[in-house]
Amino acid sequence: MIETDILIIGAGPAGLFTVFEAGLLKMRCHIIDALPQMGGQLSELYPKKPIFDIPGFPSVLAGELIDNLYEQIKQFEPGFTFNETAVHLLKLEENLFEVITDKGTKHRAKAVIIAGGLGSFEPKKPPIDNIAFYEDRGVNYFIKRPEDYTGKHVVIAGGGDSALDWTIHLAEIASSLTLIHRRNEFRGALDSVEKVKKLKHAGKINLITPAEVIGVKGEHSLQEIVVEKEGAIQTIETDHFIPLFGLVPKLGPLSDWGLELEKNAIKVDNSKDFQTNISGVYAVGDINTYPYKMKLILCGFHEAAIACQSIYQRLNPNKKFVLKYTTVSGIEGFDGTKKQAEKQVVATID
Amino acid sequence: MIETDILIIGAGPAGLFTVFEAGLLKMRCHIIDALPQMGGQLSELYPKKPIFDIPGFPSVLAGELIDNLYEQIKQFEPGFTFNETAVHLLKLEENLFEVITDKGTKHRAKAVIIAGGLGSFEPKKPPIDNIAFYEDRGVNYFIKRPEDYTGKHVVIAGGGDSALDWTIHLAEIASSLTLIHRRNEFRGALDSVEKVKKLKHAGKINLITPAEVIGVKGEHSLQEIVVEKEGAIQTIETDHFIPLFGLVPKLGPLSDWGLELEKNAIKVDNSKDFQTNISGVYAVGDINTYPYKMKLILCGFHEAAIACQSIYQRLNPNKKFVLKYTTVSGIEGFDGTKKQAEKQVVATID
Ligand SMILES: Cc1cc2nc3c(=O)[nH]c(=O)nc-3n(C[C@H](O)[C@H](O)[C@H](O)COP(=O)(O)OP(=O)(O)OC[C@H]3O[C@@H](n4cnc5c(N)ncnc54)[C@H](O)[C@@H]3O)c2cc1C
Ligand SMILES: Cc1cc2nc3c(=O)[nH]c(=O)nc-3n(C[C@H](O)[C@H](O)[C@H](O)COP(=O)(O)OP(=O)(O)OC[C@H]3O[C@@H](n4cnc5c(N)ncnc54)[C@H](O)[C@@H]3O)c2cc1C
Repeated sequence: MIETDILIIGAGPAGLFTVFEAGLLKMRCHIIDALPQMGGQLSELYPKKPIFDIPGFPSVLAGELIDNLYEQIKQFEPGFTFNETAVHLLKLEENLFEVITDKGTKHRAKAVIIAGGLGSFEPKKPPIDNIAFYEDRGVNYFIKRPEDYTGKHVVIAGGGDSALDWTIHLAEIASSLTLIHRRNEFRGALDSVEKVKKLKHAGKINLITPAEVIGVKGEHSLQEIVVEKEGAIQTIETDHFIPLFGLVPKLGPLSDWGLELEKNAIKVDNSKDFQTNISGVYAVGDINTYPYKMKLILCGFHEAAIACQSIYQRLNPNKKFVLKYTTVSGIEGFDGTKKQAEKQVVATID
Repeated sequence: MIETDILIIGAGPAGLFTVFEAGLLKMRCHIIDALPQMGGQLSELYPKKPIFDIPGFPSVLAGELIDNLYEQIKQFEPGFTFNETAVHLLKLEENLFEVITDKGTKHRAKAVIIAGGLGSFEPKKPPIDNIAFYEDRGVNYFIKRPEDYTGKHVVIAGGGDSALDWTIHLAEIASSLTLIHRRNEFRGALDSVEKVKKLKHAGKINLITPAEVIGVKGEHSLQEIVVEKEGAIQTIETDHFIPLFGLVPKLGPLSDWGLELEKNAIKVDNSKDFQTNISGVYAVGDINTYPYKMKLILCGFHEAAIACQSIYQRLNPNKKFVLKYTTVSGIEGFDGTKKQAEKQVVATID
């Protein structure tokens, strides 16, 4: 059982910044995310692309922004449950919630902030009947620990940035690497396309296009894949098959929690504090909706700040909420660190 | 007559970022500020201090944040009317407003966004009867062009950061520099106090404490000041007298514009678009108020984005507002520049 003050569902920019605003108010946070890493859409969909509308950054790479956000919040020691999807939300009593993941992990908190973006990201899977049997037995849709592929025979399928980037990365360490794509054309950064071309010419990877993986075989775990290329069928022995066909966000479990929804988003009260129809449950970032809502990163930051203020007031009904300027009061981390502006001195000049 | 799409009152962080959000929607902006420079409280009150709660910046100096914001907005070519206070707001017709400053400059725009912070910053003046006569004739409360003081006799009064910093700066170029403070103790960055001490010991400045300037004299312009030090009176010839006693924000003129006010702030409709009770007039940043309002820089950014969306919809009732991601669509400046993420390529690998 994981216990915390605020349970956050979603480790995108809105969820991450929530940790900061909560921390300023001395509330601890724990974040659940279905993906293996933090950053939400920014890490998963466009980590190397520049964003131009984060206030104060004429340009910042999405991945860099996430690194910066983590650097900014880390003294508040957020906990993380990665690779798990929040599937149940139970209100046990006023100011006590339980959230359970698809792997059965239980979390308890005094308040819940849903920062689930477009929903939990799930991989698009190839239409192969028995593929589910081989998942985590040779078939993976995410690469969690690249080192697991050292000295192995690896087949990657896909034609986008992920397929190209992981081909480049794993070609270094795998015993053999085969890249299969159903078209001749790849779509990705010029630089990545060039690198894959070089690997091919150097004989370091095996490229099969236009082709599709139509079968997976093996007794207890994956041993072979079946490939169709222009009508011809061939079998390739492999330890791993990694289809990288992109991700689809699924609102999924959230839709059964009794929350008021509107067009795949959770309705919140923006005239107050971004609370949902379940008191104590808030929604911030892309997942919420209200009049004039803009699905922008900068809006999620504001919503997170207001929601944390509201939670602070709920949990401390007898204390007055006092806004503190970080410049004036500094930042005290739960890890004992302290950041502070240089103090002024009062001194005579003689 | 200055004409633009959106007239912004206040060049603090909220006003500056408004230019960006408006620019994305192809609307031009012009900003009026009573101060001689952009940046509002950040430039005027704490330019060298770190802020820890700007999302994505574990720490950023207030002055740096303003520089970054200007860098971010400059391709949208904002116009500026500095050193002037907006004193009249007239609604000429639906979607046509006129704003007139204390110096009579007229501005016309289709919408007005008030980003006036705590109000227009006005200098605290020394209690000397006839001082108004000498304002801009030797007496100044702001230093607009430091080079104007080259080779001149200058007297600065004050005991805080501004007095110390300008003493250090002008000591280099003035023919003589006298610093007067009513206490023996100065309050400022350690570094500045040390520098002033060195200047004094090197005989480069003349320090008079504890003392007060109690009179100003001169036929057409300032020629002398009268100083009282521990009961003794002395007269000092000088070209310039610069009292730096700090600034007080005055809601001032705004309070006569028919806007609904609450505790020195303008009430806005946060359930929608941060519009005031006068349709077409919005308020963003520290100057507005609504339930759960936080006077934070990051909140002003969000409010600015929503207000610009609303203005776009007002002015283009037949167009559908479509949110564009800067990462995907890039940024087209009014100056012809274009920022864009590197395009993906579609290429065969052979
Ligand atoms: C190509 C592209 C370009 C973009 N460009 C810009 C831009 O220039 N400027 C801008 O402001 N915005 C841009 N955006 C939008 C921006 O990425 C989103 O506004 C932002 O990611 C929203 O942040 P978030 O924290 O609300 O959600 P997300 O980033 O979507 O993160 C939500 C997280 O919640 C997790 N999650 C959801 N449900 C569950 C569950 N039940 N259990 C466990 N985990 C769950 C998801 O796995 C995900 O990691 C762009 C988006 C894309 C796709
Ligand atoms: C010491 C200190 C530390 C702070 N630390 C933090 C922090 O750590 N984090 C944080 O988020 N915030 C902090 N703040 C608050 C932050 O500075 C404000 O939230 C921010 O400046 C508000 O921005 P704004 O654009 O709304 O207004 P302002 O920055 O106040 O700018 C308003 C501008 O409007 C002008 N103006 C007003 N009326 C008129 C008129 N009629 N005509 C012409 N011009 C006019 C003023 O001259 C001023 O330049 C701090 C403030 C102080 C003083």
